[in-house]
Amino acid sequence: MDLTRRDALAGAAGIAAAPLLANIPAHAAAVPLADKQAPSFYRYKVGDIQVTAVSDGANTFPLADSFVPNAKKDEINAALDKAFQPKDKVTIYFAPLVINTGSKLVVLDTGNGPEAFKSSKGAVGQFPANMAAAGFDPKAVDTVVISHFHGDHVNGLLNADGTPAFPNAEILVPATEWKFWMDDGEMSRASNDRMKGLFKNNRNIFEAALKKKVTPYEWGKEVAPGLLAVETVGHTPGHTSYVLSSGSGKVFIQSDVTNNPYLFAANPGWHAFFDQDGDIAEKTRRRVYDMIVAEKLQVQGFHYPFPGIGNVVKDGDGYRVVPAPWNTSL
Amino acid sequence: MDLTRRDALAGAAGIAAAPLLANIPAHAAAVPLADKQAPSFYRYKVGDIQVTAVSDGANTFPLADSFVPNAKKDEINAALDKAFQPKDKVTIYFAPLVINTGSKLVVLDTGNGPEAFKSSKGAVGQFPANMAAAGFDPKAVDTVVISHFHGDHVNGLLNADGTPAFPNAEILVPATEWKFWMDDGEMSRASNDRMKGLFKNNRNIFEAALKKKVTPYEWGKEVAPGLLAVETVGHTPGHTSYVLSSGSGKVFIQSDVTNNPYLFAANPGWHAFFDQDGDIAEKTRRRVYDMIVAEKLQVQGFHYPFPGIGNVVKDGDGYRVVPAPWNTSL
Repeated sequence: MDLTRRDALAGAAGIAAAPLLANIPAHAAAVPLADKQAPSFYRYKVGDIQVTAVSDGANTFPLADSFVPNAKKDEINAALDKAFQPKDKVTIYFAPLVINTGSKLVVLDTGNGPEAFKSSKGAVGQFPANMAAAGFDPKAVDTVVISHFHGDHVNGLLNADGTPAFPNAEILVPATEWKFWMDDGEMSRASNDRMKGLFKNNRNIFEAALKKKVTPYEWGKEVAPGLLAVETVGHTPGHTSYVLSSGSGKVFIQSDVTNNPYLFAANPGWHAFFDQDGDIAEKTRRRVYDMIVAEKLQVQGFHYPFPGIGNVVKDGDGYRVVPAPWNTSL
Repeated sequence: MDLTRRDALAGAAGIAAAPLLANIPAHAAAVPLADKQAPSFYRYKVGDIQVTAVSDGANTFPLADSFVPNAKKDEINAALDKAFQPKDKVTIYFAPLVINTGSKLVVLDTGNGPEAFKSSKGAVGQFPANMAAAGFDPKAVDTVVISHFHGDHVNGLLNADGTPAFPNAEILVPATEWKFWMDDGEMSRASNDRMKGLFKNNRNIFEAALKKKVTPYEWGKEVAPGLLAVETVGHTPGHTSYVLSSGSGKVFIQSDVTNNPYLFAANPGWHAFFDQDGDIAEKTRRRVYDMIVAEKLQVQGFHYPFPGIGNVVKDGDGYRVVPAPWNTSL
């Protein structure tokens, strides 16, 4: 087909459009710019189970030398650049889940909580608002499952006034994680301000506010119908991931096996400062990602960009997350 | 850090959790499963301009032998598999845009329209509903820009009753595209039922319904503040893409330079049956994608999975789209 010939013909035909704008009524100039992003929730099915990824927001901060103690700033900037992300800053994304098994409404991790919402001016702590936008009532939640005891996972357990955010829910916590953070000996050995702060925060939430009304769970057991807890330690002593299965559907919910995948899936040998045991976290990361690649399992990542569901491929010495396409219908 | 030692210590400490569930009030079983996906719109800024990608939905159909005349079904299935998509079917995504330049509210392409919404049972034709969810009133639209005259781009120009969907808007169409589809000689030479159907559809919309009240535009000119029309022919004789710029922000709006990127960005040599001139479409595709890669330009793709904004990298003999991370705030 010869476009040049066709264009010439079309031109020769001299088809005129109607005179312009004569009948267009005058109206006000463009509407004001929107001041809000779309509500950030996204639903998908795993067999008969319905998962809703509900964003808690994202936090961007300057790249500190100490962010990845075993990587140079230049290497981190190169990884950011490779992912088309701006240099010298890092964004951390947060995506708790609401899982409706049909018989139980489960919240999996709870986000940064109301105080972080305030101090970040709404950048994080969006979980309650996005959960409401998705039509979920916190009072209807049967079970809250916690993957590990870092603030971005547990602080959303409480309202701003310190009352339980999910007043009718059983709160399930990894047994090993529970033992570690509730152990006074461990607390006394906390070696830096960050670890001391974590102990204090966890005692405030679980002892002072929740009066230890939690159910510790073991790895290898279901914490809700179809939701199997699996050991993925290193990031914390009791860090837990999950396999969610129903029918032929299966998703690996990795929790924090990697943080931001542009950095830590691409470079599984990097130890983020918040990995409590970097060596074990790395071993876990490589083991889990090799398994995910081999089994072509879908993965849901708490710190993946929203909505956080995808697959993983080997890419050079590391891995790359291939986000699943957004399904516009259920 | 020795997790085994720590676990042993924690175990030895014998910290007990409170008795379980004693105080959990009974309440109804899990809430019903949701029956609707999240509204599929997404906002981002390009300098001072605000773009909202507003999905028109997605269409999944069995993979026909004729879908890509110059590729074998096995090769297409291999491309689908590489993208973690199911074999033997193809999904086409549709993402019109609403662009608020600050002075003009612009709709760029209009989706499959109300008849397709009905026949697809809501799988496509979602643009009006998602536009409403994003807070846009069709009456407030100043300008509708059409990239080319295929049904998924022009059918949304009309309401179900045949009246204009954007009653106060000037409708801008590529001059070359306009000439081609309005030329009776070209229409008489339509070589197959598909082409005949396209002529008929375009005459129904632009002549019968809109009475030719359109403004043809030339390539190399702005069709709205910051929105430059650029020639990317082959898919249709007047197929148009855009460069949207404001301040230091710049996005290449590719329209249909590729359809589904898992297939046609990965395999730029494949000629989809709906590429009117496959050879020219391929030349355009390679030229545009090489430019986008070299300039590290962000790309918005009408047929990319929602929200359709990303970057492009070279990947083997083809290209791969790297979706931009979802920004949970504006």
